[in-house]
Amino acid sequence: MIYADYNGSAPLCQDVRDYLIKRLTDGPYANPNAIHHLGSKVLMAMENARSVCAKTLGADFKQVIFNSGATEGISTAFHSVMTETSKKRIIISGIEHSATVNTAKYYADSQGCEVIAIKTKPNGIIDLEDLEAHINDDTAVVSIMAANNETGVIQPYLEISKLCNEKGVPFICDTTQFIGKTLFHFKNCGADYAVMSGHKIGAMTGTGILLAKDPERVKPIIIGGGQERGKRGGTQHYLGYETLAVALNYFEKHLDNIEILNNKRIEFETKLKEKFPEVVILGEDAPRLASTTYVAYPGIHGQAVQIELESKEIFVTTSSACSDNEPVTSKVLKAMGVSDDVGRGVVRISIGLCSDPSMYDTILEALSQTYEKLTKIKSY
Amino acid sequence: MIYADYNGSAPLCQDVRDYLIKRLTDGPYANPNAIHHLGSKVLMAMENARSVCAKTLGADFKQVIFNSGATEGISTAFHSVMTETSKKRIIISGIEHSATVNTAKYYADSQGCEVIAIKTKPNGIIDLEDLEAHINDDTAVVSIMAANNETGVIQPYLEISKLCNEKGVPFICDTTQFIGKTLFHFKNCGADYAVMSGHKIGAMTGTGILLAKDPERVKPIIIGGGQERGKRGGTQHYLGYETLAVALNYFEKHLDNIEILNNKRIEFETKLKEKFPEVVILGEDAPRLASTTYVAYPGIHGQAVQIELESKEIFVTTSSACSDNEPVTSKVLKAMGVSDDVGRGVVRISIGLCSDPSMYDTILEALSQTYEKLTKIKSY
Repeated sequence: MIYADYNGSAPLCQDVRDYLIKRLTDGPYANPNAIHHLGSKVLMAMENARSVCAKTLGADFKQVIFNSGATEGISTAFHSVMTETSKKRIIISGIEHSATVNTAKYYADSQGCEVIAIKTKPNGIIDLEDLEAHINDDTAVVSIMAANNETGVIQPYLEISKLCNEKGVPFICDTTQFIGKTLFHFKNCGADYAVMSGHKIGAMTGTGILLAKDPERVKPIIIGGGQERGKRGGTQHYLGYETLAVALNYFEKHLDNIEILNNKRIEFETKLKEKFPEVVILGEDAPRLASTTYVAYPGIHGQAVQIELESKEIFVTTSSACSDNEPVTSKVLKAMGVSDDVGRGVVRISIGLCSDPSMYDTILEALSQTYEKLTKIKSY
Repeated sequence: MIYADYNGSAPLCQDVRDYLIKRLTDGPYANPNAIHHLGSKVLMAMENARSVCAKTLGADFKQVIFNSGATEGISTAFHSVMTETSKKRIIISGIEHSATVNTAKYYADSQGCEVIAIKTKPNGIIDLEDLEAHINDDTAVVSIMAANNETGVIQPYLEISKLCNEKGVPFICDTTQFIGKTLFHFKNCGADYAVMSGHKIGAMTGTGILLAKDPERVKPIIIGGGQERGKRGGTQHYLGYETLAVALNYFEKHLDNIEILNNKRIEFETKLKEKFPEVVILGEDAPRLASTTYVAYPGIHGQAVQIELESKEIFVTTSSACSDNEPVTSKVLKAMGVSDDVGRGVVRISIGLCSDPSMYDTILEALSQTYEKLTKIKSY
C-alpha cells in the first residue's frame, strides 16, 4: 500500500506512534493547570514540547500558541487583526485554502469588508506586483500561503512579508503545507502570524500551532479559563501537543531527506514526461515542495486515474480534500488560468518526509500503466 | 496512587486506552474528507462514532457537532446566539465556569451587553426565582450549568430549560461535568445548546461535542472548508472523536456504577463527619454528582490538606484547575455565601465512573490522618 496523500493528511509518523503508545500506556494524565504534582508533570511535558516547537520553528517560546489546527489558527489570526482595526480591505490570493477564503468572506459578510484576491501567474506563483498595487491605506490584512496545498508551489512569502512590513500591514502566512516539509524560521520570515496543523506533519490529529509575532495582540476566539496565557481557552490537548514536538524533532533530524525526496520526485517527473510528453505538471517551472506533484494527462479524467491507482493500492487525490467531491477544475487551477481539459485531469501525488523515496518508482509504474490503459479506452 | 481529580481531568478510560493503542497501531490514517477509500473508511468510523454519541446523549445525529472541547462549545454557542439577536441582556449564574463567565464578559466589553449573574442559594443551587425575575424582553441568552465543577451540585437545568423555552430565550446548558457522570438526554432536556469535553469522561484530550437543538443555527467560530456541515472548520480530530464514542459506550455499560459510587461517597462523607463534626461538606443537602465531595475543615488551609494527601499519593485539588493557583475562596463558594474560614479550607475529591469505589476507604483514612495532624499543628 502506498499512501500518497500527505498534503491531505499525513499518517502518524512512526516516532509519534511509538511515543504515543508508550505515553498512553505509562501516563500520567491530569489537567495541566491543576495544582498537584501530576498536573505539574503534565504541564512541564507540555511546556517542554512548546520549547522544542519554538526552537524548530524559529520562534520564541511565548510566540507558540497551541490550538486545534491551522483552520483555528487562521480564524484566530483574522479575529486578532480585525478587532484592532477599522480598515476594510482584506487581501488574499486566488490560490488560498478555503479556511482563508471563507474567513475573509465572513468579514465581508458581517463587517462589510472588501476582499481582494490578487492574481496568480500561470506557474502557480502569486503576482507580487499585483499585490503591491492593491495594498492601500485601507488595507487591514494580507493573508497568503507559503506553499500551495494542491500544486506544492512555494510562494514568495519572504517578499510578501517584507512588503507588508514596509507598508505596515499585518501579514498572516498560511504555512500549513510548508512547515514540516521544508525549513521555516518564523522570526526571520517576519510574518505577523503563521499557522500549522499537526496532522499534516505526522503528529496527532486535533493539534496545531498559531505563531504570533506579538502574542499580546492575539484575541482568542475560544475564550476560557486563561489557558495558553489567555490566548486560547480550554484544557489543553496536551497528549497531542507533545506529539507536535516529536514530529518536529523527527523533521529536524531527517532534514537530509528533503533533498533526497526532491531529487527522486524530479526524477519521477522527468521519466513520466519522457514516457508521456502530453502530461502537464502544474507549477512545473516554479520552486515546489520536495514531495508534491500535481499532474494531468489532458483529456483523461483525474478521478478515473485516482480510482485506477487506488485499485493498485496507491492512494492519491484529485485536488484538496475539501474540494474533492466536485469533479471540476479547482479554484487554485482556475486562478492559474489552467484549462478545464487539464484541470479536470489532475491527480495530486504527495508523500512525506517519512516516506520511502523509492515509492516514486512504484507510482511511476502504476501511473504509466494507468495512462496507457485510459488513453486506450479513450481512443476506442 | 489514587487519582481523585476527575472533575479537573479524567485519566484515559482503560477501554479508550486499549482502543487507541490498537487504533494507532493498525491505522488507517487519512483525511476523512478525502475522496479515496482510506478517507471514506476514516469518515465512516467517525460518523459511526457520531451515531454512538448521539444515541448515548439523546440527540439526533445531526445535532452532534464535534469540536475541541466544552470551552469551544460555549464560545460557539454564544457566538451563534449573539449573532442572531440585538438583545443585550446575558444571564449567567455566580457559579459558572470561567469559560462562561469570560465569554459573557467578552460580549459585555465588545458589544455593550449587560451580564447578570443570578443568585445562588447557600446549598449551591442557583435561585430559580431570581432567574425568572431577571428574564426580560431584552434577554439574549441564559447560560447556566447542569452540575457544578467544584461542589458537584446538580442544578435545576430542566426547570431552567422549561422557563427559557416558555419565555423564548435561548438556553445554553454547560453539561461539562454532568455528561458521563449521570444520565443526560439532550432532546428531553430542551436546552438550545449543551457542551462536553472528552477529557472529562476518559476520552482523548482535545475532543468535545457541541449539541445544538437546531444545528442550522450554529455559526462557526472556526471557519473552514465545510467540515462538520459547515459548523466547525478544520480537519477533524477523528482519532479523538472515535474515543468519545468508546468512553460514552463505557459509561452506558457501567451505569450501575453510579449508584454504587453514590452510596460509597455518602458512606465516606457520613463517616468523615462522624469523626470530625466540624467538617463542612459544601452543597451537602443538595442533589450532587455521585462522585464529587467538596470538603473543608474550617481554619485548616485546603492547600495544606492537598499537599498532605499528595504525600500519601492521593491527588486532589483545592478548587477548579483554573482558579487553583489562588489561595482564596473561589467565586463559586463566594456566590454560595461561604465564609473565608471554610472557603480557604476546601479540597475537592472527585473520582470517576471507572474508579474503584473502595478508594473512598483509603481517602477516608488518609484525610482523617491529615486532619488529625493539621489540627494538632494548628493547636500548638
